[in-house]
Amino acid sequence: MEFKRKNIISIAELSADEILHILDTASSMKEVTSRNMKKVPTLKGITVVNLFFEPSTRTRSSFEIAEKRLSADILNFTSSQSSVVKGESLSDTAKNLESMGASIIVIRHPMSGAPWVLARETSASIINAGDGRHEHPSQSLLDLFTIRQVKGKIENLNVLIVGDILNSRVARSNINGLLKLGAKVKLVGPGSLVPDYFEQPGVKIFYNLEKALEDVDVIIMLRVQKERKSLEYFPSIREYSRFYGLTGENLKIAKNDVTIMHPGPINRGVEMTSEVADDSRSVILEQVTNGIAVRMAMLYLTASWRSNNL
Amino acid sequence: MEFKRKNIISIAELSADEILHILDTASSMKEVTSRNMKKVPTLKGITVVNLFFEPSTRTRSSFEIAEKRLSADILNFTSSQSSVVKGESLSDTAKNLESMGASIIVIRHPMSGAPWVLARETSASIINAGDGRHEHPSQSLLDLFTIRQVKGKIENLNVLIVGDILNSRVARSNINGLLKLGAKVKLVGPGSLVPDYFEQPGVKIFYNLEKALEDVDVIIMLRVQKERKSLEYFPSIREYSRFYGLTGENLKIAKNDVTIMHPGPINRGVEMTSEVADDSRSVILEQVTNGIAVRMAMLYLTASWRSNNL
Amino acid sequence: MEFKRKNIISIAELSADEILHILDTASSMKEVTSRNMKKVPTLKGITVVNLFFEPSTRTRSSFEIAEKRLSADILNFTSSQSSVVKGESLSDTAKNLESMGASIIVIRHPMSGAPWVLARETSASIINAGDGRHEHPSQSLLDLFTIRQVKGKIENLNVLIVGDILNSRVARSNINGLLKLGAKVKLVGPGSLVPDYFEQPGVKIFYNLEKALEDVDVIIMLRVQKERKSLEYFPSIREYSRFYGLTGENLKIAKNDVTIMHPGPINRGVEMTSEVADDSRSVILEQVTNGIAVRMAMLYLTASWRSNNL
Repeated sequence: MEFKRKNIISIAELSADEILHILDTASSMKEVTSRNMKKVPTLKGITVVNLFFEPSTRTRSSFEIAEKRLSADILNFTSSQSSVVKGESLSDTAKNLESMGASIIVIRHPMSGAPWVLARETSASIINAGDGRHEHPSQSLLDLFTIRQVKGKIENLNVLIVGDILNSRVARSNINGLLKLGAKVKLVGPGSLVPDYFEQPGVKIFYNLEKALEDVDVIIMLRVQKERKSLEYFPSIREYSRFYGLTGENLKIAKNDVTIMHPGPINRGVEMTSEVADDSRSVILEQVTNGIAVRMAMLYLTASWRSNNL
Repeated sequence: MEFKRKNIISIAELSADEILHILDTASSMKEVTSRNMKKVPTLKGITVVNLFFEPSTRTRSSFEIAEKRLSADILNFTSSQSSVVKGESLSDTAKNLESMGASIIVIRHPMSGAPWVLARETSASIINAGDGRHEHPSQSLLDLFTIRQVKGKIENLNVLIVGDILNSRVARSNINGLLKLGAKVKLVGPGSLVPDYFEQPGVKIFYNLEKALEDVDVIIMLRVQKERKSLEYFPSIREYSRFYGLTGENLKIAKNDVTIMHPGPINRGVEMTSEVADDSRSVILEQVTNGIAVRMAMLYLTASWRSNNL
Repeated sequence: MEFKRKNIISIAELSADEILHILDTASSMKEVTSRNMKKVPTLKGITVVNLFFEPSTRTRSSFEIAEKRLSADILNFTSSQSSVVKGESLSDTAKNLESMGASIIVIRHPMSGAPWVLARETSASIINAGDGRHEHPSQSLLDLFTIRQVKGKIENLNVLIVGDILNSRVARSNINGLLKLGAKVKLVGPGSLVPDYFEQPGVKIFYNLEKALEDVDVIIMLRVQKERKSLEYFPSIREYSRFYGLTGENLKIAKNDVTIMHPGPINRGVEMTSEVADDSRSVILEQVTNGIAVRMAMLYLTASWRSNNL
């Protein structure tokens, strides 16, 4: 199968087959990263720009490692350094990076839709590393990859997403991806953070964690973003944690072999107790490992498209 | 022809032949960067330090990409990180970098003459990426390269430089380079920003943009540096833009096939309207592309000197 | 001889034989760095993380150059960027980096003991680049390497360490290393900065520099850390310099062929006059050069352990 996209910007635009194609490619990449010599020359001589308008350690590092394993030439722009870039319009930045020879631009931006602006204005391939509250496709793909690895399938699984759905691009991308691959999705959180409009075929909304946990195969906890919006919507972290934190106790309500996921970094004692974070059913660190393989696949497939089509 | 310099610090010190040698080398480099595999092993195992005491996204990125295409080992010091370096004298920093094995140091510094201090104190090769109001040779070389590419020659062209000449190292380097290659130079800007002492054989000063535009082959717009000195010298950006901004209207005064240049990033609506920036005669993005090739040439030639002479 | 350690965290834990083994390996590495092509593929495909929770230009750069000469894939976390990392516990950070595929973590941390926490929580190899007031093994190893190079031996030398012993991890590591290799150590500084408890077999404390300089083979000056604790313990830099600064005059008291060392960067006029810093017996820049070789050796030996034992 040939990958037919110049850009990977959202899960919404991908078909189920395309998602599975990325996951299968990631499996091959994971095999590379488990060798002693974790490096292939696939992107040698290709310039990849990491253009991060929001602070990010984890996602940026994961992409950077993925790029290095593919032997790309890497240029990093982080929000603090890119003062000049910020003075320009996004469109001018895109054209300038293209003129410098950038083939792939990995962008994170606080504005939903920014990757589309970039994609429209440049012939470079755009990979979305998170835009506003909109999508975070690489996180979702690594979550789907991890679920498939642990459960052997995604279809017909009951997946519960817990927390600040409203402000979460991880939630939006995962709802899209899970539905496309045939899973059933439950959302739970405070009413102010789980608006009605998320209800759709295949998605059920809950406000009570215990109730939502019944018959669940996979739990995806969202991060409480102390530095961001979440706190405007509920009284205190303590209260949040009391009602929506995962504990050894409420975890018993879910299926016995439930899989526990979190995009990291965990606020221990907030989204979940340390007991849960370190439970044998928690695959949080496996998600981190898979993140490298999935991002290698995203880079590899867009680069393949370029060498086939340009 | 053999390049006979350990350092490239100013256009003033280069002969016309040396400038042309760099431009010819840049042509070969441009050929490399237009391949799919944009990388050659020329600087493999050579340590290049980017020592930037002023914030810079554009020039630093361009040098970094150039270094990566030549397979150098790169060490970046930006003003924010180099607090320790700043505590030392420039001379001690130079000697330390040399002791660490740096072969080439690319320096940007707010103090005119800083690259000479470095060159005197170390056996590493020094490339000036902009020193104070003094010189910015890599920008000038890429401007000359671009003019030659578009016009087929530089000799006898009428080149107009517009804006804050007083504070511009780009202007100083370009005046030097254009005169050496036989062009005629016009300068235009507010009286406070174009002092009399720039007048010399081959250079004419104007204060009226319309008048200056007559019979012009190439226009080099200087950036209005909102963050720097420029604004101390004229009442407001609005007024500047009204009198010295390039528009579809006043552009008609120049030759029909006039070439429009700008070192970037453009302040659209200030130095020029968007119409002009995106005009087919604007080569601003071509300048960005050529910047990589020219900087590769500068690195390559200094490295060649080192392997021939050390 | 086979290196038997996963981590290099302190000089205290190394045997004399292990120290000598590292120094001998550094000699081979120095031979590599003196070639035109200063690069070997030893760490190709190995991910090394530089995790710096304290600002550092010099040590970080030295490690980074060492890693590049060994062809490692490098990921840098500096204190300013690692805001997210800092939100996590050190243990979670360690596990995450391991999950991303980091094989070696070079850590600098303001908390004494932090490298042990990391080592306990991850299967990655930990190299201590300085922890609190505790140890700075790479600095000590490069000091020992330099002494051996200049003097031909370390045994029975009289080595004087001058300055803020109390707050110096360089002093602690050097006292450990020098004693293990059979040198005799003198310490001198203001009473408030050289506490009694440093006295032990082989170590003598002085409060008068002139007296301490008698019969000395090697002088290791400590940096007065204006930005850190040192200044809380004595009235002024001027006074410190007057009593504990090395000058052309008091240097005459030491042996004629005394070797002068400083970890850098020097505060000229504080720890020593410029005359002394630039004296032919000063090996301060040689220390910088040796730092690369010693750090290459540390990386090489831990990587060897990994390929032999994992």
